[in-house]
Amino acid sequence: MKNEMWSGRFNELSDELLQEFNASLDTDKNLYKEDIIGSIAHARMLESCGVLKKEELDNIIKGLNQIQNEIEQGEFIFDIKNEDIHMAIEKRLSDIIGSEIGGKLHTARSRNDQVATDFKLFVKKSNIEIIFLLKELIKTIISYAKKHKTTIMPSFTHLQHAQPISFSFYILTYAFMFMRDIKRLQNGLELADYSPLGSCACAGTSYQTNRKLSAQILGFKDIMPNAMDGVSDRDFALDLLYNIAVIFTHTSRLCEEMILFSSSEYGFLTISDSFSTGSSIMPQKRNPDVCELIRGKTGRVYGNLISLLTIMKALPLAYNKDMQEDKEGLFDSVKTARDSLVILNAMLKKIQINKENMLQSCKKGHLLATDLADYLVREKNIPFRKAHFIVGNIVAQAERKGIDISEIKDLGEFDPVFDKKTIELLDFENSLNSKKSEGSSSKASVEKQIKILERFLDSL
Amino acid sequence: MKNEMWSGRFNELSDELLQEFNASLDTDKNLYKEDIIGSIAHARMLESCGVLKKEELDNIIKGLNQIQNEIEQGEFIFDIKNEDIHMAIEKRLSDIIGSEIGGKLHTARSRNDQVATDFKLFVKKSNIEIIFLLKELIKTIISYAKKHKTTIMPSFTHLQHAQPISFSFYILTYAFMFMRDIKRLQNGLELADYSPLGSCACAGTSYQTNRKLSAQILGFKDIMPNAMDGVSDRDFALDLLYNIAVIFTHTSRLCEEMILFSSSEYGFLTISDSFSTGSSIMPQKRNPDVCELIRGKTGRVYGNLISLLTIMKALPLAYNKDMQEDKEGLFDSVKTARDSLVILNAMLKKIQINKENMLQSCKKGHLLATDLADYLVREKNIPFRKAHFIVGNIVAQAERKGIDISEIKDLGEFDPVFDKKTIELLDFENSLNSKKSEGSSSKASVEKQIKILERFLDSL
Amino acid sequence: MKNEMWSGRFNELSDELLQEFNASLDTDKNLYKEDIIGSIAHARMLESCGVLKKEELDNIIKGLNQIQNEIEQGEFIFDIKNEDIHMAIEKRLSDIIGSEIGGKLHTARSRNDQVATDFKLFVKKSNIEIIFLLKELIKTIISYAKKHKTTIMPSFTHLQHAQPISFSFYILTYAFMFMRDIKRLQNGLELADYSPLGSCACAGTSYQTNRKLSAQILGFKDIMPNAMDGVSDRDFALDLLYNIAVIFTHTSRLCEEMILFSSSEYGFLTISDSFSTGSSIMPQKRNPDVCELIRGKTGRVYGNLISLLTIMKALPLAYNKDMQEDKEGLFDSVKTARDSLVILNAMLKKIQINKENMLQSCKKGHLLATDLADYLVREKNIPFRKAHFIVGNIVAQAERKGIDISEIKDLGEFDPVFDKKTIELLDFENSLNSKKSEGSSSKASVEKQIKILERFLDSL
Amino acid sequence: MKNEMWSGRFNELSDELLQEFNASLDTDKNLYKEDIIGSIAHARMLESCGVLKKEELDNIIKGLNQIQNEIEQGEFIFDIKNEDIHMAIEKRLSDIIGSEIGGKLHTARSRNDQVATDFKLFVKKSNIEIIFLLKELIKTIISYAKKHKTTIMPSFTHLQHAQPISFSFYILTYAFMFMRDIKRLQNGLELADYSPLGSCACAGTSYQTNRKLSAQILGFKDIMPNAMDGVSDRDFALDLLYNIAVIFTHTSRLCEEMILFSSSEYGFLTISDSFSTGSSIMPQKRNPDVCELIRGKTGRVYGNLISLLTIMKALPLAYNKDMQEDKEGLFDSVKTARDSLVILNAMLKKIQINKENMLQSCKKGHLLATDLADYLVREKNIPFRKAHFIVGNIVAQAERKGIDISEIKDLGEFDPVFDKKTIELLDFENSLNSKKSEGSSSKASVEKQIKILERFLDSL
Repeated sequence: MKNEMWSGRFNELSDELLQEFNASLDTDKNLYKEDIIGSIAHARMLESCGVLKKEELDNIIKGLNQIQNEIEQGEFIFDIKNEDIHMAIEKRLSDIIGSEIGGKLHTARSRNDQVATDFKLFVKKSNIEIIFLLKELIKTIISYAKKHKTTIMPSFTHLQHAQPISFSFYILTYAFMFMRDIKRLQNGLELADYSPLGSCACAGTSYQTNRKLSAQILGFKDIMPNAMDGVSDRDFALDLLYNIAVIFTHTSRLCEEMILFSSSEYGFLTISDSFSTGSSIMPQKRNPDVCELIRGKTGRVYGNLISLLTIMKALPLAYNKDMQEDKEGLFDSVKTARDSLVILNAMLKKIQINKENMLQSCKKGHLLATDLADYLVREKNIPFRKAHFIVGNIVAQAERKGIDISEIKDLGEFDPVFDKKTIELLDFENSLNSKKSEGSSSKASVEKQIKILERFLDSL
Repeated sequence: MKNEMWSGRFNELSDELLQEFNASLDTDKNLYKEDIIGSIAHARMLESCGVLKKEELDNIIKGLNQIQNEIEQGEFIFDIKNEDIHMAIEKRLSDIIGSEIGGKLHTARSRNDQVATDFKLFVKKSNIEIIFLLKELIKTIISYAKKHKTTIMPSFTHLQHAQPISFSFYILTYAFMFMRDIKRLQNGLELADYSPLGSCACAGTSYQTNRKLSAQILGFKDIMPNAMDGVSDRDFALDLLYNIAVIFTHTSRLCEEMILFSSSEYGFLTISDSFSTGSSIMPQKRNPDVCELIRGKTGRVYGNLISLLTIMKALPLAYNKDMQEDKEGLFDSVKTARDSLVILNAMLKKIQINKENMLQSCKKGHLLATDLADYLVREKNIPFRKAHFIVGNIVAQAERKGIDISEIKDLGEFDPVFDKKTIELLDFENSLNSKKSEGSSSKASVEKQIKILERFLDSL
Repeated sequence: MKNEMWSGRFNELSDELLQEFNASLDTDKNLYKEDIIGSIAHARMLESCGVLKKEELDNIIKGLNQIQNEIEQGEFIFDIKNEDIHMAIEKRLSDIIGSEIGGKLHTARSRNDQVATDFKLFVKKSNIEIIFLLKELIKTIISYAKKHKTTIMPSFTHLQHAQPISFSFYILTYAFMFMRDIKRLQNGLELADYSPLGSCACAGTSYQTNRKLSAQILGFKDIMPNAMDGVSDRDFALDLLYNIAVIFTHTSRLCEEMILFSSSEYGFLTISDSFSTGSSIMPQKRNPDVCELIRGKTGRVYGNLISLLTIMKALPLAYNKDMQEDKEGLFDSVKTARDSLVILNAMLKKIQINKENMLQSCKKGHLLATDLADYLVREKNIPFRKAHFIVGNIVAQAERKGIDISEIKDLGEFDPVFDKKTIELLDFENSLNSKKSEGSSSKASVEKQIKILERFLDSL
Repeated sequence: MKNEMWSGRFNELSDELLQEFNASLDTDKNLYKEDIIGSIAHARMLESCGVLKKEELDNIIKGLNQIQNEIEQGEFIFDIKNEDIHMAIEKRLSDIIGSEIGGKLHTARSRNDQVATDFKLFVKKSNIEIIFLLKELIKTIISYAKKHKTTIMPSFTHLQHAQPISFSFYILTYAFMFMRDIKRLQNGLELADYSPLGSCACAGTSYQTNRKLSAQILGFKDIMPNAMDGVSDRDFALDLLYNIAVIFTHTSRLCEEMILFSSSEYGFLTISDSFSTGSSIMPQKRNPDVCELIRGKTGRVYGNLISLLTIMKALPLAYNKDMQEDKEGLFDSVKTARDSLVILNAMLKKIQINKENMLQSCKKGHLLATDLADYLVREKNIPFRKAHFIVGNIVAQAERKGIDISEIKDLGEFDPVFDKKTIELLDFENSLNSKKSEGSSSKASVEKQIKILERFLDSL
């Protein structure tokens, strides 16, 4: 390896590289809106405490609004020399309204509490957005659940056929996962609902400020009671990263099943062309790209969680520059969650359910054997062990004939304990609806489950 | 490498190895109590539904109580052939009361919902235990906070001296972290408060059971509304693993600071001999072993979280044997959290605070410079920029004299803008109490913070 | 929550708990053999340097051998008061040969370098064991590959049917993954082949020792050149944890496919009863427990890796008690890898290949379409785009007739560009063997691949 | 929450969002150079096999060179409709040289092997770059080590003072870590040195290609022997992600110590202004921003590792769209490693060593006690236990006088076993050089260590 080749490109430290390394502007410019809102709230509070005069406040607000406008019009110059979004905006504000007044805005706060406030506002907003998207997803699931109460499919354990269920019952499982996800996000929202603004560098200030007021203006429930906690806490970001990770355990399970169920081996459902890639010469080829991507993105959101956990481990109080690394992963997880949920919902809305294939699939694995045995125990008072022996024998006979027990025409021919009427036992829909326990796959139970979900959605 | 050497030991699959690999008994025997309680609740429910007769129920309960007794007396033989705790107990029950009645206990449930129930009961119990321990830790912190409102120490940002604060203010930071941890555990508890018992294999049962009854007996708030969710959900375990991980971000920060502050460079506090290792010939040597271990155990609890996240990723419904791997990590994290919190609390109770060293340390870094500048802005109406210039000049003079500004006797000699009375500005305790903002390090604010914590503890 | 209930059980710190918390004996007793071997090597070195007399050395070796015997006979009392395996053995040695001589053994070493040495010896041994097991696994794969060069099955991308391949070609993919795993382990072994013994606490010793000699006795290639690195390095453990993690990315992929391929939807292979759980009444039910467990254990080994990475992050030099947490995860990953590889190999040896099902499965998805198009481009010099159009048209006609193109009897009827002889194109085995590129699925290529693997195995 | 507010922004799936979600262009455009190089090598190979004519090859190369030029001049339009860098370049090539010839380039390859090749080339290049940077870092360390062989400082275990060492010995520890990192990267490079190009979709091709030739042109050592492995393997990316993670365990330890040692409590060294943030009024304030950032970035590289491990877990063969998620994290880890190493090296070069402070610090903790005891054992033949008793007594006397034993003028006054000459024992430099063992902190040993490193660097 020739050193000369490399040293120019790699080894010489340029001012640009150092500046870029220290700066967070590229990332935290995402927080421009929160920063401006936070500054306005802080300014209003300062005015109410007599630190700013009314006209100074008006000037500041006007200046900040102009900056927001400039950013949203793409006219704002993000200069990495300003290091972060807070300094970029403050500098521009001083350009617009003069540094005399502009400089007063930073009274009784520091970048430590400012960035904590901005970031928390972003986390709160993201929580609400993701809750909304999960709600929409649950609605889509409910609409399928209402239509497919008697669409029979096999359930699986260990990827082996287990018992006949309805597609409604199956798909509702995910609605209940997403319901828990919403509750978890709501809990995170509550825990994040305390304002750090006004904590200053870490110990508060000698100005007689009113932190409750700025908290109220920003929509926080209350203030964080200890200033050092105010600047050193990142629990709220961890909570959201974790909550998104759990959402992806759920979506990755759903996507795994969509991939399986849409394969030619299963054929239970067909994913719409818009969400898959086809082939010009192989008409059946339909790569479930979107499902694969969402499943793959689970890695990303797990990684972002472990990143921030690692950063926060054993970090002394109060603020350390390590914490500048807290945002990029969270922004990425939030974007990943939002995009994936929008697309998953749109994809789900357009899947085509192949009822016939699902039904045919139930005829593998003697799914009704448990029903027969339960019937003997329940209705004929035959001991469990004997019942199983009888049914095992019937299954063995069916095997020899090369049929599934669901294809038996007269059970009496297989064992005299069964009479003519028992043929109903071999009907999949009957099997489904024979379930009596709360939360089961029967039509009645599925309807109750839908009600629970609808009540939950209404309560949001 | 000679194959002969190895093949005997490694390559031949023994029945024992296979059995051990499949079995979970060694791990899940931790759940014996939950399994017995769960079975009793299920039996009572079956009796109320007419599946069991009163005397059958009595027999079952008597048998299960005997088994619990045997286990707790160390008389129970855990035979790996029984694979898991459920089968081990069921087998023994049949030995005691006969397989006729014993066999009926498994009516209308399966191992899938049984293990989910046991595990959830354990998770709920662990949540409550850890909440209790965090509460005790907060109490210890409060007792220090009450004593050290005027014990002055430097605060740090970037591990550099920042401003003078009190030890009370400092240590309360951790109380607020642990308060959030308690709330997070309570949220986890609420989300876990729905019983899966009676979900059976994954689709419910044709028996007319009463899941709400068994849920109620077991102290659950309600049932899980969908049977397939009932057996495939492990969110409750993830939540506890995550909540413990966050607790360790907090304890690892505290332990890091205990290690720093008890080093000879800082000398702020002394860890009691019981919690450190000394040396016979170096009297000052006091390795803070306990703090290092708790800090190190952060790795373990992070690892356990990522393990279960990995296991659950993209797992098809409903039950898969992969999920047998869910318990060992959780048991480990729970034990780690319990032991660490008990020991951390005991250690904290016995630290010795070295007030004099803390005070001396404040005399490094001109901590009071910000106070002087704030005074000029606030009281003398001098513009911020000019105030900073004046104070910068004073600091420079002090530097030349080799003193900290806190050691200046007459500020007027350094700059005529200061009069005699301003010498009060150079008193650390005055500095502390000059803080006016909510949540600051002043005595008054610290007292409010203690009240908030006490009210929170009372509300538990 | 009643405090009284809990405080007894949880809050009172017992001496036992503290002792157990500090001790590592329960875990590191796994290292007893390495500790004894290491001590003997150290004693031999001390004797060669004149620190120990010949008869002292003899006594020490005799004593240590006796201890090894006691441990292996189960007669050794592991008393947690001795904290770790090093002290437990040293204490017992002094009991046996007197503390005068026993005490001399610790000359010119400390527990810091002693534990690093023991742990490294264990890591080296584990590397070799796992290499051996991977080698056995490759042999099993080769034996299948030799038998199934013309056993046709579909390949998959996106879980969609792609092209016909042979089972040999398919299964060899995993052999090449395991070959890389072996190389990775060998690299880890080389990096770990430097002895830390004699580094003492962290700075070496004033005794004129001979670290190269003890290194040589222990089978190390050389010594670690810097004593502080000697006691603070845990790279060797991280390397093994990572290498095991990669092995499990491979085994989890294989197990995932075994689960899929043995499901009733695929039916490509049947897992032997010994490695699956059946059902008394559903003869087809065969839960692939072993595959699911190995897939699930991926979580465990990922978690153990992240644990040690977390522990080592930002840890100041040289030894810190945090590092006591390094062993449990590694022991667990090693055991998990060893058991899983033994069982996976045994399971693989007994799978039954269902050739007919594999062949039938090729008739879904028009797998031969690419071959037809390639033929037109290659042999008929038809531009790619036109060739695809022609074949797309044929596929469309087949679709309308409800057949796969492999079922076409006379291609000429579909498009005149094909003549009679081209019917050979529609033979799966021909398709397979038409592949000409290096590394392809043709019989000739598969034979070369087997040779590469065999040469590799021979080189080990 | 008002749905209307959100639905516009979030819930409606736009074509743009779907396109962006599916596309990888934004990320994989980083691979443009590798893609072009790879295509040229493939084209040359096709020409050598007769698939392309000489003038077709010339056209293709000319077109590709033009595209590279366009990209590097910023004239190339990256249109997300082209989905990825491969299609973007191929499309543009057809624009330039016509689709007739342009289309032929894709003969005998697919995007599956193309992306694997590009990515592997990038990984190989990154390995080499990082090796180079580590080499530079070692050189910087060596230059310090040569200067500070007698610069005395305390060593630490448990962050407690242990023994006097030299700064050379201390800083060399890191050189040996980075030496191992280089070896680990070299191993990764070797394992990655097999070309997947020509594997096609997953089973090879019926064209008589020459994969060895294209491999050779691209600088690969050999080809990957199995086409399915060729497209489904991402070990090479995992290896680099892991190797970077280990580098950051090392740099985070170094940065942690830089932060500690530059704090006012330690004062061992001063970080140059360019790499820290100062304060206008507190002259001692020097936040070690760069060290904190590098320490914090450990989280990021750990997260990227766990991401890809998660993605690859249990993924069926051969290519799945999940694998599109493999690049972003790796690009991020590589950039993080490169930037951090350049900056760390530049920062290290400019630290100022405060010898006097280091020396003063040695006078805390009776660092020489062990030397005294060793002396008595070694030279006076006093049993270890008794020697320790004597020294413990001397330390106790020193404690009562409020001095460190290094400040004792006449050891004989403390215990008659010491004579006048033994005062040399209380000299720190003597202590250092009294170390005789290989790898110790003595001047002679440090010189040997430097030689080992220099020989290693020469061998690269």
